[in-house]
Amino acid sequence: MAQLQQVIWQQLTADQQRQLLARPAQAQSAELLSQVQAIIDAVANDGDAAVLKYTQQFDCPSLTELRYDEAAIAAQAALVEPQVKAAIDTAYQTIYAFHQAQQPQAVTVTTAPGVSCTQQYHALEAVGLYIPGGTAVLPSTALMLGVPAQLANNPRRVLVSPPDRNGQLSPALMYVAQKCGITEVYRCGGAQAIAALALGTESMAPVAKIFGPGNSYVTAAKQLVAQIPGGPAIDMPAGPSELLVIADDSANSAFVAADLLSQAEHGADSQVILLTPSAQLLEQVTLALSEQLEQLPRADIARRALAGSALIQVSDLAEAIAISQQYAPEHLSVQLDSAEDYLAQLTHAGSIFVGHYTPESGGDYATGTNHVLPTYGFARNYSSLGLLDFYRRYTIQRVSQAGLAGLANAIIDLAETEGLSAHARAVSIRLEQSV
Amino acid sequence: MAQLQQVIWQQLTADQQRQLLARPAQAQSAELLSQVQAIIDAVANDGDAAVLKYTQQFDCPSLTELRYDEAAIAAQAALVEPQVKAAIDTAYQTIYAFHQAQQPQAVTVTTAPGVSCTQQYHALEAVGLYIPGGTAVLPSTALMLGVPAQLANNPRRVLVSPPDRNGQLSPALMYVAQKCGITEVYRCGGAQAIAALALGTESMAPVAKIFGPGNSYVTAAKQLVAQIPGGPAIDMPAGPSELLVIADDSANSAFVAADLLSQAEHGADSQVILLTPSAQLLEQVTLALSEQLEQLPRADIARRALAGSALIQVSDLAEAIAISQQYAPEHLSVQLDSAEDYLAQLTHAGSIFVGHYTPESGGDYATGTNHVLPTYGFARNYSSLGLLDFYRRYTIQRVSQAGLAGLANAIIDLAETEGLSAHARAVSIRLEQSV
Ligand SMILES: [Zn+2]
Ligand SMILES: [Zn+2]
Repeated sequence: MAQLQQVIWQQLTADQQRQLLARPAQAQSAELLSQVQAIIDAVANDGDAAVLKYTQQFDCPSLTELRYDEAAIAAQAALVEPQVKAAIDTAYQTIYAFHQAQQPQAVTVTTAPGVSCTQQYHALEAVGLYIPGGTAVLPSTALMLGVPAQLANNPRRVLVSPPDRNGQLSPALMYVAQKCGITEVYRCGGAQAIAALALGTESMAPVAKIFGPGNSYVTAAKQLVAQIPGGPAIDMPAGPSELLVIADDSANSAFVAADLLSQAEHGADSQVILLTPSAQLLEQVTLALSEQLEQLPRADIARRALAGSALIQVSDLAEAIAISQQYAPEHLSVQLDSAEDYLAQLTHAGSIFVGHYTPESGGDYATGTNHVLPTYGFARNYSSLGLLDFYRRYTIQRVSQAGLAGLANAIIDLAETEGLSAHARAVSIRLEQSV
Repeated sequence: MAQLQQVIWQQLTADQQRQLLARPAQAQSAELLSQVQAIIDAVANDGDAAVLKYTQQFDCPSLTELRYDEAAIAAQAALVEPQVKAAIDTAYQTIYAFHQAQQPQAVTVTTAPGVSCTQQYHALEAVGLYIPGGTAVLPSTALMLGVPAQLANNPRRVLVSPPDRNGQLSPALMYVAQKCGITEVYRCGGAQAIAALALGTESMAPVAKIFGPGNSYVTAAKQLVAQIPGGPAIDMPAGPSELLVIADDSANSAFVAADLLSQAEHGADSQVILLTPSAQLLEQVTLALSEQLEQLPRADIARRALAGSALIQVSDLAEAIAISQQYAPEHLSVQLDSAEDYLAQLTHAGSIFVGHYTPESGGDYATGTNHVLPTYGFARNYSSLGLLDFYRRYTIQRVSQAGLAGLANAIIDLAETEGLSAHARAVSIRLEQSV
């Protein structure tokens, strides 16, 4: 625990303050980008053969078919343990309820006599949902992507995930896939899966938008395919996970420590920050961290994450709020009796956890909020994932002959101001003639 | 007119069909990207001095101050011609009315007993609105960006635009800036203006999101700054402008030709497409194009755009719809008596113009819809600009002690399934202790 920094904010220089809150460097090496570009090019040229080759190399040497068929999905889903099934059922219900309430509505306005404008929503035709594999099984991520896709009723809901050594996907994941009405499942991961979703192969039609987290290869591949002219959209830029806790003496130090550790166990590059005006709480949390770390299976990972993190004593809650707003954390936990008084000022966060009994792990799994959130400071300017991300908005206008006559001067004068005579002509010709 | 292609869809091979609808190549040269990166680096290192240097070089040799102050804005705005002022006032009203109706609402759901989830909207703190300069003055683009920013009430609404040789911005533009309550105006354009908005300089704080169209330097700069870890968001990917018209014998060929030309005059890389089942209409439109072209000040540009465009005879309207959906045009004009019958199937477009009296130029200026639209096929997967783009969404959850007890099994079981014990522990410790 020697590495965990305990500081008093006002004793730092502006430079030290900046350094303390700096995110771990994220520059993608040119080498990684060129490796990933080579994988994308291989998939562009060789389609399924390239995806299979990489999947055999990294995941399952004997795999000959990417598509996971209905029978295999059903067989795996049937193997899900009853306890896990019940947990998934509960999480599905809360996530479904919260995202269902986000259903968008078309808007129609008569903007001038005879002029009607509509904003309409259209569910994306095809969405690609990337679920990481490796050592961990992530049914929760499949719920976070699969439930809104089901609610939006995207016609093609394509799930990709790397198979195990035997070419199988996990029972929990396949149970979620069934529940969310996933329409296609493919056994592949990494940059090759992203390339296949973006470009299409013989067995997989391309998708309009790619969602989901992944390792540095997946992240680089999403970033590269999003640059292709006419290529797929992606959900949001990626970065390591973060938690910022604001707490005062009303908080339970063991709860605060448990939350910091639950964020720290995500990965060595996770960042956790405590802001408190209470020197006493800061000490207690430090002790509780040591104590609880001993009992953690992933203590090594958590320890490395804590080394890049900080417990910060602030002058008052106003200072804590200012720091939090500047940092813009992915997860923001507000463990104050008076939490409600400060929420209006705490707007730069992916998701906020209010009060003493709302652990961050609740939002990861089962409160109903989405756990796909902007990180790395992007909570200043990107949205948390929601149902709207599975739609696109477009507009429709209907102008009557009289309506056009009413707007004619405005259109013609603006067009002439901008030097676009044909634009003016398209109006005047309609005043002179009729159909 | 020899270059304008007239074809019968069913007589083309699949390859020819694909070629006909291919967008003009958009690959950005490595040279352009490295030039733009050098400009961004210069602004990162030298701030205002670099922005001024480029602005002196490209726009106004005598400029010494980027900020356009209140007095200058007011003085220029006072010079706007009454006719242009009236046109802007009309357009402002329709755009305001349509975007005001898009105001988002927070959503709160009790997802389980004692568990409340909220989706909240927060207006971005600072938005950068890029208005191109050069030969044309573009008050309409300032309206399309300024009105939603005003409605969202983004605290900083920063407009940048290249000045004329005398260091001034146009009266029409400054009148719009005043009307929309722009909070800061800077006289710069090109990649240097985008870099300044993204990174900040001594005189300009950085913004959270950058909006607006521009030339290839601006486009490349937006794309590059959007890759910066923690950098600004951008509105949407850029591409040349497009119009696809679906028309039958109920259409007036002169109207159709006028619309095709109004799109063609935007730029030599604009693409216009007519889909009609009527050989007669196709002939009449061809004649009308020749006739109207003669009268166009921008005939040269329009002719070059038409050379990359096509008049296509389809077997029936169903075929027209299928082609349009695949092409996903920025602007879609439906000049059919029966237009309403087909709208439910026409979902891949930035903005749709319904019937015979709704010219595309109406949407460019004054119907109320936004003219910042996805192009280059991105109307499959990106939204048209709207009020929501000036906000971000985030979530809040509030869980009571009893609420947590109710969800505990689901959270703990999912956390254990995913191998994240500290996540489980953050729940169980709260069941064992209280604050
Ligand atoms: Zn977590
Ligand atoms: Zn136009």
